[in-house]
Amino acid sequence: MNGPDGKVSLIVHGGAGALDPGDPDGAAHVAGCQAAARAGHAVLKAGGSAADAVVAAVTVLEDDPLFNAGTGAALTEDGAVECDASVMTGQGAAGAVGAVRDVKNPVRLARLVMERTAHVLLVGAGAEAFAARQGVRRLEAGALVTDRMRAKWQAAKIKATTPAGGGTVGCVARDAQGHVAAATSTGGILMKLSGRVGDSALIGAGTYADDRAGAASCTGLGEAFMKALGAKVAVEAMLAGAPPDAAARQALAAVRRAGGDGGIICADAAGRVGFAFNTPGMSRAAISTAGVETSGV
Amino acid sequence: MNGPDGKVSLIVHGGAGALDPGDPDGAAHVAGCQAAARAGHAVLKAGGSAADAVVAAVTVLEDDPLFNAGTGAALTEDGAVECDASVMTGQGAAGAVGAVRDVKNPVRLARLVMERTAHVLLVGAGAEAFAARQGVRRLEAGALVTDRMRAKWQAAKIKATTPAGGGTVGCVARDAQGHVAAATSTGGILMKLSGRVGDSALIGAGTYADDRAGAASCTGLGEAFMKALGAKVAVEAMLAGAPPDAAARQALAAVRRAGGDGGIICADAAGRVGFAFNTPGMSRAAISTAGVETSGV
Repeated sequence: MNGPDGKVSLIVHGGAGALDPGDPDGAAHVAGCQAAARAGHAVLKAGGSAADAVVAAVTVLEDDPLFNAGTGAALTEDGAVECDASVMTGQGAAGAVGAVRDVKNPVRLARLVMERTAHVLLVGAGAEAFAARQGVRRLEAGALVTDRMRAKWQAAKIKATTPAGGGTVGCVARDAQGHVAAATSTGGILMKLSGRVGDSALIGAGTYADDRAGAASCTGLGEAFMKALGAKVAVEAMLAGAPPDAAARQALAAVRRAGGDGGIICADAAGRVGFAFNTPGMSRAAISTAGVETSGV
Repeated sequence: MNGPDGKVSLIVHGGAGALDPGDPDGAAHVAGCQAAARAGHAVLKAGGSAADAVVAAVTVLEDDPLFNAGTGAALTEDGAVECDASVMTGQGAAGAVGAVRDVKNPVRLARLVMERTAHVLLVGAGAEAFAARQGVRRLEAGALVTDRMRAKWQAAKIKATTPAGGGTVGCVARDAQGHVAAATSTGGILMKLSGRVGDSALIGAGTYADDRAGAASCTGLGEAFMKALGAKVAVEAMLAGAPPDAAARQALAAVRRAGGDGGIICADAAGRVGFAFNTPGMSRAAISTAGVETSGV
């Protein structure tokens, strides 16, 4: 089942709750997810690791201004972009950053935390100082703010709207060696307090991977995923034998008991991929071990 | 079993790995834990909630310079104190702060996050700005640094020593209404990078509570507790029927598989308390539902 059998697969999500199924932006979101899935899949086909693939796919989504991660992230109450991201391998390595400003690809910084420190999570100014020491270019302040997100922020300032996440991105993959990995990245909730860190930065909450079972990446109301440990619950369900779809559904039920909705993507150690969401939509794209592409919103 | 039966109990820890059993400071650590346990117990006997009790007990430990939390916390690589703390109730409320400077009682700030925001975790400068808006007094820079910890830091700068945690504090309690709660607070690992957040700030990793089962607070190598979700695993074990001691042991076994050692204290919904550690020592003190005090190192 698991092992170096050459089978590769992955699935990406562009966030639950960002779109309704009839939204005119749906096709563009699906196209963005497909581009990310193909980028990750190319890494896997070239013999890259699952960790390489999920970081490559999430980087594509961070750079796409349609998604709430990296460029185009949602703004805090005081109008800044603060990003959370994390990555975990099925072999137990993990890295994450929280509330980081002016870094183009937070998921790559999370990977540097994983590979070059004894820590798992760096936040705020300390994470930015680490980035500088690692030679990561600091963007000009506000470089990640798009006109679309500034307009949403201005509207929210005038009329208190429901604080909305949506558009968080993630990827889970299974590589030719039988290893799995997961990565997640987000700007978080529009109008969040500065310094707020959500599930996308937290191992077990938004991101989890275990080679014995599979990997999971979450999107939705971060605080509920944090209390329910949504990604860990999904991986535990796969460890207990649930296929990826069912594991995602089981974890979402636990998250709902903790007061929130969202979506989860899963890949298991055999390379099966699946997902579930209980928001109106969740853009996603997958490529199976047979090379078959699927997508939806 | 659970319910408003008037039974109260709690257990506190002063950190795994801070002391060996023969350490001359052992008696002082135990006395500090006993003072904290009595403070929390007085809250419970007066009809206070488990959340009130764990915050009261952890506040006593934060203010005791012997322990690595609040006053007397370990220093970062650049010689500052940055604190992590979290609190969770068995009813599912949670709050936490990470990498916070110059706040005397991080556990109280974590409680404010729980009670006065829609978020679970605030970090760094954003958490400090939130504290200021809530009227929490900002200490002068360096006020939490003790001579003892500055000396340890200077020694570590000269001779690279094993990065050591130790002295993290925590409390779990069961109140007269049958509710449970957990709180944890730490300065983290000596010589940690600025911005590093450990398990003590993270729901599921260092702190967890669920009225159906019980509550847990952890101490030890934070990164391993983060990967294993030590506190959540302990509460899940109690939910499956394990008594508190056995639940703590089961969770420690999972943490060891993730590469670290430490200790865990647990209280279950019936008011039984227990602990386990696999470091040479862990100072602790407990008061049972029968009012019996126990302690050790």
